[in-house]
Amino acid sequence: MQTPDFKFYIPVEVRYSDLDPQWHVNNTRYLVYMEQARLEYLRNLGLFEGQNFLDLKMIIADVHVSYLAPIELGQQVRVGTRTAKIGTKSITFEYRIEDSGSGQLLATGEVVGVTYDYRAHATIPVPADWRAKIGAFEGVDFLN
Amino acid sequence: MQTPDFKFYIPVEVRYSDLDPQWHVNNTRYLVYMEQARLEYLRNLGLFEGQNFLDLKMIIADVHVSYLAPIELGQQVRVGTRTAKIGTKSITFEYRIEDSGSGQLLATGEVVGVTYDYRAHATIPVPADWRAKIGAFEGVDFLN
Amino acid sequence: MQTPDFKFYIPVEVRYSDLDPQWHVNNTRYLVYMEQARLEYLRNLGLFEGQNFLDLKMIIADVHVSYLAPIELGQQVRVGTRTAKIGTKSITFEYRIEDSGSGQLLATGEVVGVTYDYRAHATIPVPADWRAKIGAFEGVDFLN
Amino acid sequence: MQTPDFKFYIPVEVRYSDLDPQWHVNNTRYLVYMEQARLEYLRNLGLFEGQNFLDLKMIIADVHVSYLAPIELGQQVRVGTRTAKIGTKSITFEYRIEDSGSGQLLATGEVVGVTYDYRAHATIPVPADWRAKIGAFEGVDFLN
Repeated sequence: MQTPDFKFYIPVEVRYSDLDPQWHVNNTRYLVYMEQARLEYLRNLGLFEGQNFLDLKMIIADVHVSYLAPIELGQQVRVGTRTAKIGTKSITFEYRIEDSGSGQLLATGEVVGVTYDYRAHATIPVPADWRAKIGAFEGVDFLN
Repeated sequence: MQTPDFKFYIPVEVRYSDLDPQWHVNNTRYLVYMEQARLEYLRNLGLFEGQNFLDLKMIIADVHVSYLAPIELGQQVRVGTRTAKIGTKSITFEYRIEDSGSGQLLATGEVVGVTYDYRAHATIPVPADWRAKIGAFEGVDFLN
Repeated sequence: MQTPDFKFYIPVEVRYSDLDPQWHVNNTRYLVYMEQARLEYLRNLGLFEGQNFLDLKMIIADVHVSYLAPIELGQQVRVGTRTAKIGTKSITFEYRIEDSGSGQLLATGEVVGVTYDYRAHATIPVPADWRAKIGAFEGVDFLN
Repeated sequence: MQTPDFKFYIPVEVRYSDLDPQWHVNNTRYLVYMEQARLEYLRNLGLFEGQNFLDLKMIIADVHVSYLAPIELGQQVRVGTRTAKIGTKSITFEYRIEDSGSGQLLATGEVVGVTYDYRAHATIPVPADWRAKIGAFEGVDFLN
């Protein structure tokens, strides 16, 4: 199985409220940007309709971010998302945060989500249609 | 002195992280949206360059928001800003948050900022160029 | 009907993440502090159990905050809450944010909540037990 | 060099505003809790006085969090911090987020901070007094 390219990007608006007293985007906001990209990725693939959040079949198990350059107010930023791996009950997403103008890589991230039933408060196997739709989008066979 | 129209609008990206457990945009985030509009308004008029925040000559003294309709994830939103009044040491901004698609008014706001020197920790009179540049933009004579 | 005293206070921990690039607590966080006080007030009176947020019978209609002094990291802060008024479908809360050490008043606030059914997406009359329990706590007859 | 115990804990107040639409504390807020613990750790050791943030000699280079259990409103939580490693220009902090009542481990984290001069926008070697004070507190010889 090859690693897919980053095919899905969203622009992110840097807010004054994303800045911390150090005058750059706070380290925790990079994960907010990645969260937003993940939600839009899932909505784009038809895996979450965005209204009833008890239907969002994922809980976060692990995050890892490497910060390569500070982000400042006024900077144009985009976030790329791809699915790197689908396990029995987990999906590993990879992220790139880039300057939209120069293309400079500002941060990389890896987030592991566990498929989850928020009504039952229990993990569930990755649904077959998630595996199929994500695989079709990424051009990778994620069959387990 | 007539009240100026809303000439300055910014689009706002509704984030998952703006939502609260009630599944709509949290009431405090409307003020974050207005804050972002105010910053971009000041930068657009050349009154703040956006790098050294000790040069941002304003501290917030009073906020008032009326909420007319909930905002949900996926909604397209814009924020209008205008200067309603300039006093000796204060500026009153008015805001409209609207659905960009339907034009529906979602909230109105009024924010009073006091002109302030963050190095001296002291209020200052509204600088003459602020009065002139805002007046020119709004098409209103704000001479005191 | 007399205005009740502030009988309910919570301590608030000022976080680094509450600060903005101006190095004081951001204006929107005062409303976060008041929101926290309101939630604990409602839980304390047995009006919200804190688990299923579709059972939280209130939506915010109006907020107004007056800022009297900046709040800095390391400052000890408390928030007082009282119910000033109960209408047919709304409750008006008043707030005081104070320095816990000196007692200095740092901000005052007024928030109007409309009683609301999050499942039906519709306003509801203030429940009789809310009126009774809040009245008993505040020592004021809020009968409509 | 042995790994020090967790000697430094702070209580964290779970806020309604820390919750996301999934009704638990959002994954990004675990890093806010760790950030708060790190700031208080540095202030406690006399390495940051908490007023002028250009004097905070650290920028975040890498974060990694493993989530073991959701955190809900009303839960009592504490965050433990220790310094695991001091390099030439970096310090590695480790974190434990625990339920204060049961002692249950809720999350672990590792954050790498690079020592940094915010005025010069440049990395700096770990100051000698940081190495000495952290070593004395942790009971570990961090001499490079």
